[in-house]
Amino acid sequence: MKNKSITSRDVDFAKWYTDVVSAAHLATYSNVKGCIVIEPNGYAIWENVQKILDQMLKETGHQNVSMPMLIPENLLRKESELINGFAPEVAWVTEGGSKKLEERMCIRPTSETLFSDYYSTVIRSYRDLPKKYNQWCSVLRWEKETRPFLRSREFLWQEGHTVHETQEEAEEETKNMLAIYKKLFEEYLAIPVISGRKTEKEKFAGAEYTLTIEALMYNGVSLQSGTSHYFGQKFSKAYDISFLNRNNEMSHVYQTSWGVSTRMIGGLIMVHSDDKGLVLPPRIAPTQVMIIPIKETPKVIDVCENIADSLKQAGITVKIDRTDKSAGFKFAEAEVNGIPLRIEVGERDLEQGIITFARRDTSEKINIDYNQDIVSKVQQLLEEIQNNLYQTALHRQQELTFEAHSLDEVKDIMEHHPGFVKAMWCGDEACELKMKEIKGTKSRCILEQASPIDDHCVVCGKKAKHLVVWGIQY
Amino acid sequence: MKNKSITSRDVDFAKWYTDVVSAAHLATYSNVKGCIVIEPNGYAIWENVQKILDQMLKETGHQNVSMPMLIPENLLRKESELINGFAPEVAWVTEGGSKKLEERMCIRPTSETLFSDYYSTVIRSYRDLPKKYNQWCSVLRWEKETRPFLRSREFLWQEGHTVHETQEEAEEETKNMLAIYKKLFEEYLAIPVISGRKTEKEKFAGAEYTLTIEALMYNGVSLQSGTSHYFGQKFSKAYDISFLNRNNEMSHVYQTSWGVSTRMIGGLIMVHSDDKGLVLPPRIAPTQVMIIPIKETPKVIDVCENIADSLKQAGITVKIDRTDKSAGFKFAEAEVNGIPLRIEVGERDLEQGIITFARRDTSEKINIDYNQDIVSKVQQLLEEIQNNLYQTALHRQQELTFEAHSLDEVKDIMEHHPGFVKAMWCGDEACELKMKEIKGTKSRCILEQASPIDDHCVVCGKKAKHLVVWGIQY
Repeated sequence: MKNKSITSRDVDFAKWYTDVVSAAHLATYSNVKGCIVIEPNGYAIWENVQKILDQMLKETGHQNVSMPMLIPENLLRKESELINGFAPEVAWVTEGGSKKLEERMCIRPTSETLFSDYYSTVIRSYRDLPKKYNQWCSVLRWEKETRPFLRSREFLWQEGHTVHETQEEAEEETKNMLAIYKKLFEEYLAIPVISGRKTEKEKFAGAEYTLTIEALMYNGVSLQSGTSHYFGQKFSKAYDISFLNRNNEMSHVYQTSWGVSTRMIGGLIMVHSDDKGLVLPPRIAPTQVMIIPIKETPKVIDVCENIADSLKQAGITVKIDRTDKSAGFKFAEAEVNGIPLRIEVGERDLEQGIITFARRDTSEKINIDYNQDIVSKVQQLLEEIQNNLYQTALHRQQELTFEAHSLDEVKDIMEHHPGFVKAMWCGDEACELKMKEIKGTKSRCILEQASPIDDHCVVCGKKAKHLVVWGIQY
Repeated sequence: MKNKSITSRDVDFAKWYTDVVSAAHLATYSNVKGCIVIEPNGYAIWENVQKILDQMLKETGHQNVSMPMLIPENLLRKESELINGFAPEVAWVTEGGSKKLEERMCIRPTSETLFSDYYSTVIRSYRDLPKKYNQWCSVLRWEKETRPFLRSREFLWQEGHTVHETQEEAEEETKNMLAIYKKLFEEYLAIPVISGRKTEKEKFAGAEYTLTIEALMYNGVSLQSGTSHYFGQKFSKAYDISFLNRNNEMSHVYQTSWGVSTRMIGGLIMVHSDDKGLVLPPRIAPTQVMIIPIKETPKVIDVCENIADSLKQAGITVKIDRTDKSAGFKFAEAEVNGIPLRIEVGERDLEQGIITFARRDTSEKINIDYNQDIVSKVQQLLEEIQNNLYQTALHRQQELTFEAHSLDEVKDIMEHHPGFVKAMWCGDEACELKMKEIKGTKSRCILEQASPIDDHCVVCGKKAKHLVVWGIQY
């Protein structure tokens, strides 16, 4: 059943996207320009992400802290590449407590400066290393065009900032964090990603290099989904984070930072959802099962409650919809909200010992013998749904990944059915700029271990250095 | 064993406080004036508070959301009492994205305005009510004097904002939330509180009335620890949050808001801690048990790991200190960090089948037969420590609660051994101002159900209206 408040995604993808955000009550624009209100349904997804990722971070020795949200201008200016990258898009506080400030402060667009300043005061010796700190917070970047979750002036994220004794250890951390993000996306969000290194042009301001995971949306557009930066000693020299090393000499630490944000909720929508509304993978869905009594008789309610209790005991999140709406309305609401599995309990079915399962991903309805082991059936179905969503997305990503050997081929792909385009590159920024003329195509990442598919650059024809994945980006 | 880096609390309480914050690595000042960095040990306490309180909020039907951190000036100005209360202490953003803003925005000092504006756009009918939303975030108030946790320009908190169909329901919510805060403080933080209503002078700007819980610190100073506000229709009229009621008429909602903050970490320190450092109640301690191998032999490590495993399985948070420090140093570190229970495992003791438990609260050392049920012994001891800390704090609070029948009595108490002073009050603000001349004594709360202890006001001698608890405040 199509949801009437949602534009078809094949007709107008952008409109479909905002319709889903609104119909599933994930977020709404606020009266603060470019900022959204994340509503309970949207925030509950973020809480699940936090729970899963936070546990992965703690298991790998990371600790949470809280840094100030303001950065004094002189502190921001200590590292020139960072300030050049972010200065045009920060918000400045110039008055506080009814007085003009002597020095203006910006609201953090990211916190390398604050962490570096902090580390410079607490690290003295190699015995103090490594420090692997993370914070969950919001940051602000003065974007001109905004879209809920994908790009808004303020967004929620986690930012990890670590300091290490050696280059090797810091580079290892940079890689490990990308692997954790890849795991989060593939195993929980059911979003396949490709990973690699950003080009010099696309890397994070101030980083030696940036690793990235990139996902492909339903419409073939790419979404940068998580990044992990290796800083070397750039910040530690600018902020003087030095320590007495094992040879009793002063040395500067090696740093990393890495982050994922509420943008991933936009990715979840654009990879899995459909014209009926939101589709959520079971491992990230705030409510995994919605039980709907077709008509509220004592017998039906009794069965609903029994099922709910046994599912809860098995650690499955479940609700019973006992609002005074029609069953059809409740079905549509469970659909639009992306509940992975719906259980329908009706008086007449019960007489025949039957209840009905409805899968959100395939719309399949399955009659279940009420006397069989419902908990394991639900567990099995939730796993199937999780896998099916991942496989469907993976299959689409594979179908929309192309190889190009000439600029004309790139043009043809991007203009007719965009996706990931693999093509060789000489390493020259001029060729990236040339590529951008094709509907804004940008390098997504360099595939570092991949075999070359050509020996010349797809743009200029000179000797190729890297196999690059290109795409049109959000 | 006294910790040398900590001033004695009976010598200089203020210095002792900041020494404990620093020695236990809870927080440190940042280079952002008046803002702190909450370090891992401090943030882990806040995470536990969040886990406990968030579950209580969810069990009582509250949902989390995320509002913008900025408030446009015109939105802030819609409710005049609120702006009068907060305008002197907000920070203003006047530039964004390299341009001067047409309208300045403040960083939220509290979010009644944003929630009200949001509710006004989503509530149409009584069927949309109640909405019971909460957010975990940080807020900013341009304080002049700051102290870690107790008063800093930016602090972390939760703020609940609810809208209801009737006055009765909203007042019920206001009361229920105060009861939840009281439960959090008494049952988890082991901090006894008194509760009551704030006077008109001390209530929240814009509220019809404010309920409060107040705690008494070791030095007899009061700490406002959590507040719950009933707004009636003040905000709903200013922001036009109206709905079609059950009689098919337009009506304005009734509102509440309530919050607790990282200030409670300051309370935890000032109620329980001592000259050896932090003392944490087991139910809020990030690490409940620290196991310390006296010397790392295979046998000792084996026993340490066995104990740790069985405690973990029982849901107890436990760590083994395997750093290369001396046992004595490890003991002191567990003490300064407030670990409730320390288990010492030594080779020689083991030969006699003995391990040693050391309680942080009483410093008592107990020899335990290694073959007895260690898990239940630990569980029992943690409960005893929790109770002992609460009873000690309650006993102190009772000893430091006085009745006063004249201004001279109030003076005598506040100048020699401050605490909670119960005294009658006529209801006149002038008498509150007079009281303030005594070392800044303020009304903490009106005890609403209490029997009068006098018939005249302790200040002016006129007919008394309320029994009030007075105190010197943080």
